[in-house]
Amino acid sequence: MPELAYVNGEFLPIEKAVVPIEDRGYQFADAVYEGIASYNGNLFYLDAHLDRLERSMQALSFPTISKTEIKKAILELCKRAGIARAFIYLQISRGVAPRNHAFPASAGVQFIMTIRPVNEIPENIKEEGAAVVTTKDIRWGRCDIKTVQLLPNVTAKQRALEAGAHDAIFVAEDGVVREATSSNVFIVVKEKVLTHPLTPRILPGITRAVIIDICKDLDLPMTETFFKVEDLYGADEVFLSGTTTEVLPIVRVDDRAIGSGLAGPVSKRLLAALQERGNRPAV
Amino acid sequence: MPELAYVNGEFLPIEKAVVPIEDRGYQFADAVYEGIASYNGNLFYLDAHLDRLERSMQALSFPTISKTEIKKAILELCKRAGIARAFIYLQISRGVAPRNHAFPASAGVQFIMTIRPVNEIPENIKEEGAAVVTTKDIRWGRCDIKTVQLLPNVTAKQRALEAGAHDAIFVAEDGVVREATSSNVFIVVKEKVLTHPLTPRILPGITRAVIIDICKDLDLPMTETFFKVEDLYGADEVFLSGTTTEVLPIVRVDDRAIGSGLAGPVSKRLLAALQERGNRPAV
Repeated sequence: MPELAYVNGEFLPIEKAVVPIEDRGYQFADAVYEGIASYNGNLFYLDAHLDRLERSMQALSFPTISKTEIKKAILELCKRAGIARAFIYLQISRGVAPRNHAFPASAGVQFIMTIRPVNEIPENIKEEGAAVVTTKDIRWGRCDIKTVQLLPNVTAKQRALEAGAHDAIFVAEDGVVREATSSNVFIVVKEKVLTHPLTPRILPGITRAVIIDICKDLDLPMTETFFKVEDLYGADEVFLSGTTTEVLPIVRVDDRAIGSGLAGPVSKRLLAALQERGNRPAV
Repeated sequence: MPELAYVNGEFLPIEKAVVPIEDRGYQFADAVYEGIASYNGNLFYLDAHLDRLERSMQALSFPTISKTEIKKAILELCKRAGIARAFIYLQISRGVAPRNHAFPASAGVQFIMTIRPVNEIPENIKEEGAAVVTTKDIRWGRCDIKTVQLLPNVTAKQRALEAGAHDAIFVAEDGVVREATSSNVFIVVKEKVLTHPLTPRILPGITRAVIIDICKDLDLPMTETFFKVEDLYGADEVFLSGTTTEVLPIVRVDDRAIGSGLAGPVSKRLLAALQERGNRPAV
């Protein structure tokens, strides 16, 4: 199971993979990314990730690179690495050019990837649930575009760990709960599942969409609606969703117990259904 | 006059300078920077830039790297390049580590630089003044830390150029004028010079501080205060300040003429005084 990198068509060991210092991703955060996971060697919702990547690139007027080309490179990387439960990190930046804020007149994109085994959340945390803290959302106004502008996420995650929590949830000035540092937030109130609607303030998570779909399958009432930090504290269940997060029950928020203080039945049911979809044989 | 790069102690041609793809500056915008200019080989307010760089690193809890070490590398780069009117771009990131939002336990910093001749704003624009457009400020909440989270600045600059303007000025939701994409904004109203106070919403510009100091020297009334987009439109003069921008008169904002529609006397006086400071023989 070799970990592997990809840089503009070339496959090489991660530690040998480099980019020019004037890659615009490095000097301007002028880059978009995706993180894709596999179950038993099958990439989970690959096309949904590719569609979102394309939307990110279009939103930022990136030079064109075809989804077919990207998909081919991803599949080749997976084949070479041969990791059954893999995490593929993929980043595309607006090329290399002497530093200047304006878009370069003629630079292609830079396309890099890494593949490694999924760094799983420990089984006991997934079963017993995790603690989170809330933090003020000071991120930029276009969190719906999946860019590498992740410094506030980095800082919030680090502060959460230092406080003994697993992650941080961003809360807007007016108390609206946005999302966590790399996952979406759901709450369960009186058997109804709620999550933040798709706006420029949150990432349109692939796993978020899969969970909404699973709710339909399971006949679980589900609404995309704004809710506040008090609703989070008072919810029967809270959980995070994400590509490698899957469904993570949250049992403490800012040191307040959520519901019974144990991983809730809806969260458990959704996690099982999500993993079942991941482990289905490829069609 | 060779253009040159520096990467962690090594001097090399810019096109050969690379960083690992897992440099945190590349995947998380987890990096801070400075841009420093020289006049006749003398670096303008170098120590002020180093102090600000140190504050940026401290604000983000970066691993320690001494100002003495940084200064030594800058001076060596200048000496090797021998460019009289140089622009030094300097970036420090939180090291290299497998992708994970949390700070790496033990990674040093990555320290890169480039040196090139200053890409001067054309003389006719400096004399006749430039046009700008305003744009909604969607940047993150800590623009006082000089990080590479510059994607909204990139996009705003590009849109400005496409609209036939020189730059864009960020305006907050409530109409308060913040700053331009890589410079601070000043207005002159009834012979009084005004600029946005130092808050987390703008960069504490080195040239901004020098201009405030020059205003004292010249007995020009000067106040750091909030002002709105209507004040910008109605000002007698508007100008931008920055390391290579110096003092740039703005004669049109959103297609409205400012004052007489010509570069104003206060802007001209401040530009002359600024350049005089730059060209003073080193002490």
